[in-house]
Formats: sequence, structure tokens, C-alpha cells
Amino acid sequence: MQDLDETSITQSVLDRVANAPDPRARQISEALIRHLHAFIREIEPTEAEWEAGIAFLTATGHMCTDVRQEYILLSDTLGVSMLVDAINHRLPGNATETTVFGPFYVEAPEFENGADISGHLTGTRLYISGSVRSEDGAPIANAAVDIWHSDQEGFYDLQLLDQRPGLAGRGRFRTDEKGAFSLWTVKPKYYPIPDDGPVGKMLKAQGRHPFRPEHVHFMITAPGFRKLVTHIFAEGGEYLDSDVVFGVKASLIRRFEKHEGGNAPDGQAMEGTWYSLHHDFVLAREAMSQAA
Amino acid sequence: MQDLDETSITQSVLDRVANAPDPRARQISEALIRHLHAFIREIEPTEAEWEAGIAFLTATGHMCTDVRQEYILLSDTLGVSMLVDAINHRLPGNATETTVFGPFYVEAPEFENGADISGHLTGTRLYISGSVRSEDGAPIANAAVDIWHSDQEGFYDLQLLDQRPGLAGRGRFRTDEKGAFSLWTVKPKYYPIPDDGPVGKMLKAQGRHPFRPEHVHFMITAPGFRKLVTHIFAEGGEYLDSDVVFGVKASLIRRFEKHEGGNAPDGQAMEGTWYSLHHDFVLAREAMSQAA
Repeated sequence: MQDLDETSITQSVLDRVANAPDPRARQISEALIRHLHAFIREIEPTEAEWEAGIAFLTATGHMCTDVRQEYILLSDTLGVSMLVDAINHRLPGNATETTVFGPFYVEAPEFENGADISGHLTGTRLYISGSVRSEDGAPIANAAVDIWHSDQEGFYDLQLLDQRPGLAGRGRFRTDEKGAFSLWTVKPKYYPIPDDGPVGKMLKAQGRHPFRPEHVHFMITAPGFRKLVTHIFAEGGEYLDSDVVFGVKASLIRRFEKHEGGNAPDGQAMEGTWYSLHHDFVLAREAMSQAA
Repeated sequence: MQDLDETSITQSVLDRVANAPDPRARQISEALIRHLHAFIREIEPTEAEWEAGIAFLTATGHMCTDVRQEYILLSDTLGVSMLVDAINHRLPGNATETTVFGPFYVEAPEFENGADISGHLTGTRLYISGSVRSEDGAPIANAAVDIWHSDQEGFYDLQLLDQRPGLAGRGRFRTDEKGAFSLWTVKPKYYPIPDDGPVGKMLKAQGRHPFRPEHVHFMITAPGFRKLVTHIFAEGGEYLDSDVVFGVKASLIRRFEKHEGGNAPDGQAMEGTWYSLHHDFVLAREAMSQAA
């Protein structure tokens, strides 16, 4: 019998999973054991610290409900979600970069281009326009463009259902034959992720704030192209350098252009302050094997 | 602004925890981020695998109740608990080795030496005797010796409360002036850890059984000495080479001597089959700083 001690135990645990029926389950188990043991060897937890770790993982699980996923927040705030996103989206040079999906997407009704999706959300008016193209610059017609964002206080419609039932600040658009789409809504704001649970305590212990910088979510799909999940962030906004979920990429920061009166791009005569945002998205073609 | 990508994200996350108010919280956070990211980079999870990981952690948390700690089971079955135990018990040469505490301890009544603690547990009679000594061989009088074990089917009293209320197969003894203790009980059996939850699913996916080999738990305390938490395992028992929680150490395996009739060590005339187990325990002295 092999005598287990501080030195030999890791190999013993690795040996134990050598007969996992599925090779991928074996590979993941072996990597988990090696990296987890290396972490433990590095920090040398006291027994009280080990107990605190067990209590943290348990509380994080207990915080999860149908409408709150604390383990996704943990993955997000430790940079794991963005790392997994990066690994799964090694895109060709000029394709629009991806970022985290986030917890606030729900399927929304389809609108005509130029429609106003702000609904009951309050805020300064914002005109969003853009195009969807392939890597060679050809417009993609009839692409589905899903858009969702917060109000001027940083709240999504889903967080306001108690006071104001109904979806707002979200909708699906279809690109025209030039690959273009456009809509009216209101300008969003930075906001904190839910920080009243174990992840909030962790952020505090790590000396971190819980905020995400101002952004609009986009999800764009078209047959033959890879689905694009991304945000556009507001240039000059707060927390761009310290997004709590590490979602910001330089290529996704755009100016939300400020205007006073004048005419909007759709010809509408405007009064007071309003904003406009334009971005041209590039979709990567699906690999042949995925398209088959 | 630093542009986050697959390569740079780990350093960005590390930078973010650099201002943790407590240095130990910072050290643990940094190690966690490095090892967790290294694990992700090695396995390159698909998005579906990441979702499965989130679901596993969530289900493990949801399985935890007042009487079931699935995260401790996870720690145990991945060898983490024994690694933490080893790190926290680097004992002098001849001190008795430690092993996992396990989930079945509760404080039990104190008995006189020679008493029978089997209560309502069924099984073949077992006489346990031993001594408690310091590293230099001097007997330790009045040490508290807690003992607990399963019945002949592998069940602890705590698992039988529905059918048979009351504690059984557990008790506290005090060593006499020669450092000796003794008691009667019944012989335990190997048993599975609870495997109807996420950890059970993990073991199955890893091609592993859920069993622990036959053993008796000991916890021994005496002023001026380090608390000893350990088991004595039955020589020749099943699963000694594959304890699901990696708790077996060669020095903790002892013969459960089989007898037919004759006289027991306490002079009692015996009929039929019975067993005896003897072990001399050695406690490490508490470090000065801990004793202070």
C-alpha cells in the first residue's frame, strides 16, 4: 500500500481518476486535482481558513436561485468568464470582439428600424445606428440585432418589475439590404453587480468596487456567421479601467456623441440634450464544420 | 487603458486585488486567481462545459444542509482535506499520525474504563485498549480519549436515528495513571460516503467507488499536547488501498485480532467469536507559542 503523505497525496488522487470512462472527464479531473492541490500547497491554509473556504462555497451555492446566479458572478469577478469567452472566440483579425453575455438578457419583441425601445425607462434620448458586415466588408442583410441596456440610474427593466411591469430598453432589429439598423432609446449608466451576497463580501475583502462601466449590449446573429455577443462601452465613462467583470476591450469603446437641439440622423427636429452612437459590426464566418 | 485579452487578463485580475486591506486575503486571492486561470487555460473549456461547471458548483451548494456538507465531501474526495490535514500536522518523528475528522463526530458521554459503548449497535464484540504517551514514552494520565465508529453494516448511530434514537458506538474515556484506557464495543465495517448528490455523480464520472475502509475514530486531548484526530484501520480490510477520502496511512493500520471463546484481557469469560484491538498513541507537545 502506498503511504499517503503531504508529498505523495497528489499523485495518489491523480491515480484514482485514471479509469474515468470518458477521456475528457479524466482530463478535466486530473487538471482540477493538480491545480487545486498546487493552490493549497502555495497558501498552506490553516484549518480555520479551510473551514472558511468551505463556508464561502456553501454560502455562494445557497445564494443561487432562479433569478440570482452567484456562481456566475464569482466566475465573472475572478476573470474566469472573460477568459473562457476569449478561449472560445479566437476570431479573425477584423471581426468585432466579444465580451460577457451578462445576466440581463431576455428575448424581446422585434421592432422596425427607427423605432423607440425606451418604453418606461427614463433618461436622456439616445439614437443608436450601425451596420453589420462580413470580414470582407460586404453588408449582411436581415441579420438579427438584439439590443438591451440599463436606464439612467443603472437599472434594467428586469430589476424594476415590482414598480413598472413590462419590458423596456430592449428589442430586436433586422438589418436592411445595406446591413444597417437604427433605433431610439435612452442613455444607460454604470451600475453595480448584485453585491449583497458572498461575492460582494469577496470584493470588499479584495478592496474592489462592484461597478460595471456604462454600456449597451448587442447580440447579432446571421446564417453562416458566428453569433456575436458583445457590448459597446461609452468613451470617457467611469469604471472603464476597472470593470468588475473585466469585460472592457479598447475596440468596444465608442463615443456617445452629445448634441444640443438640431436635427437627428433620421431628420427629426430635436430639443435639448440628446446623444448618438454609431458602430459598424463585423461578423466572423462560421467554420465549415460548424456550418455543416 | 490596458486592453484585456486571453493573454493579459490574468495579470489584470491580479492587479485588481493588489489593494486588498488584509495581506493574507490578498495572498489567497492572488494564488486563487493564478491557479484557477492556469486550470482554465489548460482545459480550455467549451461554453457548455463552463455552464456544466457552474451547475455542478451550484448543485453542490444546494445539497448542503444542517446535516449534510457536500462541499466537505468534495474536499475529502479530491484529497484536499487530507492535504490540509498534512500541512497542519507536521509532527515530530514518533507522534501518532493524523487523518480526517469526518462528519460523524458528536460529543458523547464519558464512560469508566472497561465500559461497553455499543448501545443499540449490532455486531461482533470488540475489546479496544490502548495507551496515551508523550514523545519520550512517558504515560499521559487523565487524557480525554473520544472514540466513535460504525456498526457491522457500516452505519453510525447518527444515520439510524429514525429507527433507533440515542447515541451508540461512541464515548469519552479518561486515561489512568499509566496512560491506559479500555472499553468494549462492536466491530465496525467499511461503508460508502453519501453518494446520492453531486459528489456521487463526480465519483461515478471518475470511475471511482464511494467506500471508506473499516476503521475506529479517535480524538485524544491532554493539556500541553496537540490535539490528535485520527483513525485506526483494520488490517486486511477491504478498500484500504482505495479509501475514497485518502485517509489511510500505513502507521494507522492495526490487526483486529480474532478470538474464539477464552478469556478477554479484562478477565471476562467469552463465548464464540470476538475481536481485540490495541494501540499505543503518542501525542506531540504543543509548541511554546501555542501553549502560551
